[in-house]
Amino acid sequence: MTPDDILLRRRQDALGAYAPLFYDKPVQLVRGEGVWVEDADGRRYLDVYNNVPHVGHCHPHVVEAICRQAETLNTHTRYLHETVVAYAERLLATADAPLSSMVFTCTGTESNELALRIARHRSGGHGVIVSTFNYHGNSQLLASLTTAFPVPEAFAPFARAVPIPDPYRDGEGRSDDELAEIFAERVAEAVRSLAGDGVRMSALLFDPLFANEGLPRLVPGYLAKAVSIVRKAGGLFIADEVQAGFGRSGQRMWGHQVQGVTPDLVTLGKPMGAGHPIGGVMAPKDLVDSFGRAATYFNTFGGNPVSAAAGMAVLDVIENERLIENAGRVGDYVRRGLIRLMDKYELIGNVRGLGLFFGLELVRDRASKTPAPEQTKALVNKMRDAGVLMGRIGAHDNILKMRPPMVFSIENADFLLTALDKVFGEI
Amino acid sequence: MTPDDILLRRRQDALGAYAPLFYDKPVQLVRGEGVWVEDADGRRYLDVYNNVPHVGHCHPHVVEAICRQAETLNTHTRYLHETVVAYAERLLATADAPLSSMVFTCTGTESNELALRIARHRSGGHGVIVSTFNYHGNSQLLASLTTAFPVPEAFAPFARAVPIPDPYRDGEGRSDDELAEIFAERVAEAVRSLAGDGVRMSALLFDPLFANEGLPRLVPGYLAKAVSIVRKAGGLFIADEVQAGFGRSGQRMWGHQVQGVTPDLVTLGKPMGAGHPIGGVMAPKDLVDSFGRAATYFNTFGGNPVSAAAGMAVLDVIENERLIENAGRVGDYVRRGLIRLMDKYELIGNVRGLGLFFGLELVRDRASKTPAPEQTKALVNKMRDAGVLMGRIGAHDNILKMRPPMVFSIENADFLLTALDKVFGEI
Repeated sequence: MTPDDILLRRRQDALGAYAPLFYDKPVQLVRGEGVWVEDADGRRYLDVYNNVPHVGHCHPHVVEAICRQAETLNTHTRYLHETVVAYAERLLATADAPLSSMVFTCTGTESNELALRIARHRSGGHGVIVSTFNYHGNSQLLASLTTAFPVPEAFAPFARAVPIPDPYRDGEGRSDDELAEIFAERVAEAVRSLAGDGVRMSALLFDPLFANEGLPRLVPGYLAKAVSIVRKAGGLFIADEVQAGFGRSGQRMWGHQVQGVTPDLVTLGKPMGAGHPIGGVMAPKDLVDSFGRAATYFNTFGGNPVSAAAGMAVLDVIENERLIENAGRVGDYVRRGLIRLMDKYELIGNVRGLGLFFGLELVRDRASKTPAPEQTKALVNKMRDAGVLMGRIGAHDNILKMRPPMVFSIENADFLLTALDKVFGEI
Repeated sequence: MTPDDILLRRRQDALGAYAPLFYDKPVQLVRGEGVWVEDADGRRYLDVYNNVPHVGHCHPHVVEAICRQAETLNTHTRYLHETVVAYAERLLATADAPLSSMVFTCTGTESNELALRIARHRSGGHGVIVSTFNYHGNSQLLASLTTAFPVPEAFAPFARAVPIPDPYRDGEGRSDDELAEIFAERVAEAVRSLAGDGVRMSALLFDPLFANEGLPRLVPGYLAKAVSIVRKAGGLFIADEVQAGFGRSGQRMWGHQVQGVTPDLVTLGKPMGAGHPIGGVMAPKDLVDSFGRAATYFNTFGGNPVSAAAGMAVLDVIENERLIENAGRVGDYVRRGLIRLMDKYELIGNVRGLGLFFGLELVRDRASKTPAPEQTKALVNKMRDAGVLMGRIGAHDNILKMRPPMVFSIENADFLLTALDKVFGEI
């Protein structure tokens, strides 16, 4: 047995046999720096998968902020602390009115739980609309809304799942306006269906970039129409920015800003502390206050000074290194490269995504658009052998998911494109 | 306005007006070391409240572990990593058979959510029994089980709350055996009541030291009887060790070990990373595996290398500094001092707790045992002025809650007892 095999066996005992792992033969990572990670054999990989180390693995500014605060004080928000307030103010300054207050949590799951609790409290209903390929967290409630993979819980009777329009697969012979109209009608039908079961609307819960759904091209106006229908029915719009936020789109700080819709509640997680566990919910102050008065919400680790310092340092780096601009520029460069690959390899059916978030949909045949999940899986494994980490998404498991740290450079992009060219040539 | 007032006003905007704060006039903490914290005016306080900085504020060994790992690699458990496996193995070695595997989370809330999901999956039921003064977390499901304070959610129709026997208030003329019998009958009645509503048992969820309930003296055998009734009905016992664990009792590593009952699921949180957000669930491997196979549970930040390093460092300190032994020795010393104060001050009705966890129940009259919540509140505020931080618990808000970091010394104990003596003299 190799050292990796021994570690894997120990892990299967200690963490259970089904704790998820990437790759047929898992990677043991020991070191990270910027967009690079290194395994136990000293092999380096370009990380085109991980959005959590948002500003790059082990960014010295973030590490220094964590260390400095960890050696000074780490406590909770029942005492006053300057950093947590200043951090909240700075985050809220990136959001549009009326988003003016926030509550800190530790994870995206906790953020979505809290947002759903607030939406229930405000609306007096508990009906929820999600997408047909969603994942918003691992709690019991969020599991009962999950459609992206099987869970032991039954799908919630107070929820409806609607398919997100995918211009690539559903757009044939239809204008964007028609696609937006179809989507709006699906949401309206979900509202009617819930009402028919006596369920009042509480929330529409969407990732504004629809990442798990496979990053479909965003049809102009289609989110706004759906949100307006839900609001008319008394529900709130929760934008899950756990993947879409912090400038990932290369255009704006938040995914919902790209779609031109201001949510009632915005949920944050993954990239927020570049790996340090921190999450949060942004909302209008009256919404935070009316729930806070009723619920005495307290989160022990949420908004602690170390987490706040980590989050603040991430914002510093995004600004100082102009990472949103970088995501736009390098992202477009990669997309142009991917489109060139499409001319060369029939397997690539569609290039999608925005900023530093790419989807490459693989099909066995461009005319029929038959998904190519086996080839997609093989490609992910072969890219790992070529020294590049990436993943898969989408209902058909046939979309390459690329979402590198935001410090991804033109040079990194060339490395990625060269490796893809080589591996596509071998498939 | 003082600088604290200005910060408070900014906080009320950014974090909402109802974000919980301690004290009539909140404290702004800026620094912590061992059992001491310091406010913005340079005033020092003995911390007799916070169990999260379990091995002391900013313990250099923990800080160093966090910094070293944060500058090396921080990623998630979909890659292999030695530290997370070694940490799980070391934690599990402190637990009794058949607890043999674990799943990492980020908070106590996530741990209890996961444990309840596992219990539902295993039992096929969803009936839950909790105490009449419980708090196990801030998610929607846990809010619907909360009885320690008002929440907007209705109490779950699939749950029953049973009162925990309190020898001080319920023990008059009753033997411990009788108290245990009464408690067992309450649990049996809850099981029957759920069955009457067609609800199958899923879990009994208790803090084995009953901290929020006011730390009643633990009647020998009473937990074992209740657990046995629940297991016969097909339910599992979840021990919430978020407050009771990591040697707090001064006797054993886990609160349930003090009560001589091995749970089906053990949930961890608060003290685990000495402030770094980490939690987890320990369970028999077959339970982790059967749920894992069905649910593909993944927690992005759970068990990341930095959190695992923090957790490992906490275990190092507990061992190296013999903190469980210290909690027993210093805890007994404090309790003897509290009993002496009881001889002096009529207001003290009952001294309780074990290890470095104390409850001091204040009553207006010892015969009637009428709770004295106003005096308890005044005492907490006056103790703050005397340079000591503590809190309140219990259904009547009349129990002083003292739960200092585990490095609390005899010298610290004398400081605490002297301050209490002074303040009780003024009330």
